[in-house]
Amino acid sequence: MNIVYLIGLLLAIVFVLFGIMVDLKATPPFDPKALVQFFDLASILIVVGGTIAVVVACYPKQVRSMLKHFRIMLGAKAFNPEKYIDELVELAQIARKNGLLALEERANAQPDPFFKQAIMLIVDATDPDRVRSILTNDIEQTSARHQEVIAMYERGSNAAPAFGMIGTLIGLIKMLYGLDDADMSSLGPNMGVALITTFYGSLLAHVVFNPIAANLTARDEEEMVCREIILEGIMAIQSGENPKYLRERLLTFTNQNKRDGESGGKGKRGGKSSEE
Amino acid sequence: MNIVYLIGLLLAIVFVLFGIMVDLKATPPFDPKALVQFFDLASILIVVGGTIAVVVACYPKQVRSMLKHFRIMLGAKAFNPEKYIDELVELAQIARKNGLLALEERANAQPDPFFKQAIMLIVDATDPDRVRSILTNDIEQTSARHQEVIAMYERGSNAAPAFGMIGTLIGLIKMLYGLDDADMSSLGPNMGVALITTFYGSLLAHVVFNPIAANLTARDEEEMVCREIILEGIMAIQSGENPKYLRERLLTFTNQNKRDGESGGKGKRGGKSSEE
Amino acid sequence: MNIVYLIGLLLAIVFVLFGIMVDLKATPPFDPKALVQFFDLASILIVVGGTIAVVVACYPKQVRSMLKHFRIMLGAKAFNPEKYIDELVELAQIARKNGLLALEERANAQPDPFFKQAIMLIVDATDPDRVRSILTNDIEQTSARHQEVIAMYERGSNAAPAFGMIGTLIGLIKMLYGLDDADMSSLGPNMGVALITTFYGSLLAHVVFNPIAANLTARDEEEMVCREIILEGIMAIQSGENPKYLRERLLTFTNQNKRDGESGGKGKRGGKSSEE
Amino acid sequence: MNIVYLIGLLLAIVFVLFGIMVDLKATPPFDPKALVQFFDLASILIVVGGTIAVVVACYPKQVRSMLKHFRIMLGAKAFNPEKYIDELVELAQIARKNGLLALEERANAQPDPFFKQAIMLIVDATDPDRVRSILTNDIEQTSARHQEVIAMYERGSNAAPAFGMIGTLIGLIKMLYGLDDADMSSLGPNMGVALITTFYGSLLAHVVFNPIAANLTARDEEEMVCREIILEGIMAIQSGENPKYLRERLLTFTNQNKRDGESGGKGKRGGKSSEE
Amino acid sequence: MNIVYLIGLLLAIVFVLFGIMVDLKATPPFDPKALVQFFDLASILIVVGGTIAVVVACYPKQVRSMLKHFRIMLGAKAFNPEKYIDELVELAQIARKNGLLALEERANAQPDPFFKQAIMLIVDATDPDRVRSILTNDIEQTSARHQEVIAMYERGSNAAPAFGMIGTLIGLIKMLYGLDDADMSSLGPNMGVALITTFYGSLLAHVVFNPIAANLTARDEEEMVCREIILEGIMAIQSGENPKYLRERLLTFTNQNKRDGESGGKGKRGGKSSEE
Repeated sequence: MNIVYLIGLLLAIVFVLFGIMVDLKATPPFDPKALVQFFDLASILIVVGGTIAVVVACYPKQVRSMLKHFRIMLGAKAFNPEKYIDELVELAQIARKNGLLALEERANAQPDPFFKQAIMLIVDATDPDRVRSILTNDIEQTSARHQEVIAMYERGSNAAPAFGMIGTLIGLIKMLYGLDDADMSSLGPNMGVALITTFYGSLLAHVVFNPIAANLTARDEEEMVCREIILEGIMAIQSGENPKYLRERLLTFTNQNKRDGESGGKGKRGGKSSEE
Repeated sequence: MNIVYLIGLLLAIVFVLFGIMVDLKATPPFDPKALVQFFDLASILIVVGGTIAVVVACYPKQVRSMLKHFRIMLGAKAFNPEKYIDELVELAQIARKNGLLALEERANAQPDPFFKQAIMLIVDATDPDRVRSILTNDIEQTSARHQEVIAMYERGSNAAPAFGMIGTLIGLIKMLYGLDDADMSSLGPNMGVALITTFYGSLLAHVVFNPIAANLTARDEEEMVCREIILEGIMAIQSGENPKYLRERLLTFTNQNKRDGESGGKGKRGGKSSEE
Repeated sequence: MNIVYLIGLLLAIVFVLFGIMVDLKATPPFDPKALVQFFDLASILIVVGGTIAVVVACYPKQVRSMLKHFRIMLGAKAFNPEKYIDELVELAQIARKNGLLALEERANAQPDPFFKQAIMLIVDATDPDRVRSILTNDIEQTSARHQEVIAMYERGSNAAPAFGMIGTLIGLIKMLYGLDDADMSSLGPNMGVALITTFYGSLLAHVVFNPIAANLTARDEEEMVCREIILEGIMAIQSGENPKYLRERLLTFTNQNKRDGESGGKGKRGGKSSEE
Repeated sequence: MNIVYLIGLLLAIVFVLFGIMVDLKATPPFDPKALVQFFDLASILIVVGGTIAVVVACYPKQVRSMLKHFRIMLGAKAFNPEKYIDELVELAQIARKNGLLALEERANAQPDPFFKQAIMLIVDATDPDRVRSILTNDIEQTSARHQEVIAMYERGSNAAPAFGMIGTLIGLIKMLYGLDDADMSSLGPNMGVALITTFYGSLLAHVVFNPIAANLTARDEEEMVCREIILEGIMAIQSGENPKYLRERLLTFTNQNKRDGESGGKGKRGGKSSEE
Repeated sequence: MNIVYLIGLLLAIVFVLFGIMVDLKATPPFDPKALVQFFDLASILIVVGGTIAVVVACYPKQVRSMLKHFRIMLGAKAFNPEKYIDELVELAQIARKNGLLALEERANAQPDPFFKQAIMLIVDATDPDRVRSILTNDIEQTSARHQEVIAMYERGSNAAPAFGMIGTLIGLIKMLYGLDDADMSSLGPNMGVALITTFYGSLLAHVVFNPIAANLTARDEEEMVCREIILEGIMAIQSGENPKYLRERLLTFTNQNKRDGESGGKGKRGGKSSEE
């Protein structure tokens, strides 16, 4: 589980609820009844419904796999470059001992379809230029598809405040039309209701859509780094590169701090790095 | 028909109408008469008319083919990469058996002018570098023209809220000028009318123009992928590549999940992919 | 004349005037006297003057040739790729018959200085790499200069609403300072006057500056396509390419639909294209 | 002196002062006393001080050479491509007559350090690839440093309206807290004071920071064109290119209209160009 | 210590506190009690807490090393290109005298892990193309990780005003709901409290998050320049380049003014440069 994301999401909601319920100058300072004022079914329907409808209209194709996006975003199994590097070094050792054909068995056991395809390409003795061209093209097309998915959630993050404002305008216009024949005393609560949709729209954009877009972007970048590693590793295995050198080269794709730990055999490295 | 787009559009309108008509605290909670308040012919004319006029002034050339854009956006016949791959593999088999000249008949039956031109280029035994240069240039110029069309709808999406605000300013200024000699009681309804143009402008931008721009962008990307497939396929056919390898290479342009289904002959692929 | 641009501009102004004059609930519904309320000389001077002053301060060099920009934008003589292609094919035929030196006469009659320079370069038997380098450099530098001009009008489109707001703030602050010693009845009209500058600023940005920037961008793109055509055509003429192939290659720079009409000799092309 | 910039700046200030002082409906229409209302020392300190403090915190390094930026921006001695071209052609003639070593004297007299370094590189008979690599790298690094300076002023242009709003919020909050125990009559003037910071922030952004950023961008582009000219010219001199061809090639970096005037010897050029 | 950043930060806070406390028209003009009005614990919790929660949800991975980012940003030990150039020239001299193997000792004493890895690569006599490929890849991946960190702080800068607005909406809605049964006199102070969150959000974005993002960007650029210098230097040492030429080439990465001072041996350079 992407547990930090969930903690962040929960915290954001807690802070908003806290903001609604707490009034340090009142007695008691903590008033859970205030929550009722902030729940308005019609407003939720307008903002959430309208935003989703617009997202559906903008991205008819991507919208179908929303559930999958959540599974990817929440899944604990992040793309782990070190694991792929270990596997590639192992494949390189097998290939050195028993030849490239010996990798076919490993390919069939490989759950990642991109990795499997990459292994099969060198098992089939494909021309190196073609291997690179096929895998590079695959990486680019996959990344382009991911960008469209991320664009969908960014569209949601734009549409939500817009529908918040549309809802508030509806509320204000209805209130203003009724102003002359109603008593002034209902002006305040009516305006409060009207503003609730703006509140929902802003929450939806910043607490829901933006974090999803940011997390999917991070996952996309992780996956693309892993695929670059697979591409470089497979090319090196095909050219018969030394497994030890292979590890060193592939480790440049990963965080240097982690790298230091793993490649300790080359002499202890002191000093500080500005690595993230 | 691009049915999901239409459903999304319809849903967005339904949620807005619902927001206008429903007041859960009133009896009855559902009041269709409220819709009348939100229909203001003059406001519609200012916002829709002004926005379209600005779009026409900004994109005098692109505006003429608006109807075509809608046909493309709504058309069911999406650009289908698999269909093009099937055709290219078939062409490759014909070329292998009967030579490149045998493709001329197929070219004449080909409805897609880009595909037809591509086939004719290799039928005419054009130099491979020139084939690539002509087709690449065509792809780039077509994409540039599509970008201008998309920019037109994005301009509409910027101009609509601006005209909404201009309309509201007109309403407010007229109301404020008349404030001293009129009775205060008309203040509310007048402000309500003034705000209606902002409401229209926001709807126009987020429910009409943004989805059109997003859908045309998706169509452009689909078409460009298809053209890239045709380009790579035609180049491979000209160089006499093995039809089986050709399919494998071209499939990297498409979604890996779909690919798994089609290329099942190369061993079952387990595991999950983060595709799309 | 760029007649569609002028129609769009006129329509936008008509819709705004209509919005000012019409009140469907009043009798008569059409009141031209309202226009007087929206004309405020001081406000126009602040917004238009301030915006132009900022544009001058930001782009001291580009501002001098504003009149030229309008002539380019409004001029009927758009950059016509087909015309250039016809001329280049003709030049190719002359060069084939009488040699490159025979082109000098045509160069002297050529009104477009870029085209003339290009022809002179091959007449002078300049090295092909240098021809390409000189012309490419010219295209890039010209485009960079055009981008600065477009940036100037985009700056105007940003500065106008800012000066609208500055004017409104001036009006509001003066009104608020005078609030205690004046009678409340003048509050409304004073606020109305204050808002007029925001109205002017928004109009100036969306009806004047944005369309100019969009049209100049379109003209720049048209001119760059024409220069690319000249570049490719001149290179091909120098290498002695077949005039017929030349036309085919250069036509890939233009809209495919138009192309279909012209190159009808290569077999009728059915089907629909998503061009433009 | 960059006189047009100063005129634009002055005009913008004049229009704002005019907007403050003029009220065409009052008698007299021109009231200089209104200026006093718009001068508020505390507000100026908050907005100008806060904005500069944020700029300092964001760009601790660039902020130190602000005075130099003003000197560059206001300086009359713009980067003049024609002057550099003349010098390069002269150098090419000297190099042809007396060899590259004869250029050393000229290098020592050269005030522009980049130009001087470029000449010294060919005097020292450096390998052409190294010359290009050193000079290109210098151009890129210089441009990157200029971009950071421009980013500093753009940050100022973002921070100024933010501090304007922060000042207005401070004013509003103080006013609202005091609302119950004060008489209503002071409400207006207090709100007027609160809005003054927004007015200052908007002026600061649009009249001060944006024009500086735009002018420095223009200067950067001019300087980079000059350096590109020096780079190409030096490479050509090293390869012993004909001085006459050199001028022609370098002139493609400059505005074609100007070029027409200078290179009149190649036949009169009619027609109109859309240059600049 | 990055002392200028801290001074800027402090100044910004001082100007805001000054704006809160000073009222030049009141007696005394300086009222520290006003500060109490601007301290609202609940508002701070909502804005700061909500913003941090959203940042955590958006960047679960980067958020863990926040402390390290502050250390990097505040640290006095900026990346110093001149120091690296000196070291590289020294290494080049050692390599010339005693061969590449003699550099191993220096590598082990090198605190910067990137520099150390670079030296070890040429000590191990790695193929030059592989050295460049490994180091370039390392630079790109490091920069990509830094960009994600900067994106995190930019997200904070977007989320803070949003939570400011959410807090204000909460305050307004609660106030408006209670409007009919409360006395009007509490309206002002309640609105004041509501606006305080907007004030906090704006401060947080412009005084905290933006300067952090700008400083980390500057540090990233400095580090990348140093790594480029190491890359070029190491490649030159491996190819046995003259240490004197090496210094000259590497100095093009740094500010030309500084360079003038160091490379004074090549003749005094007069004139002014537009260098920052």
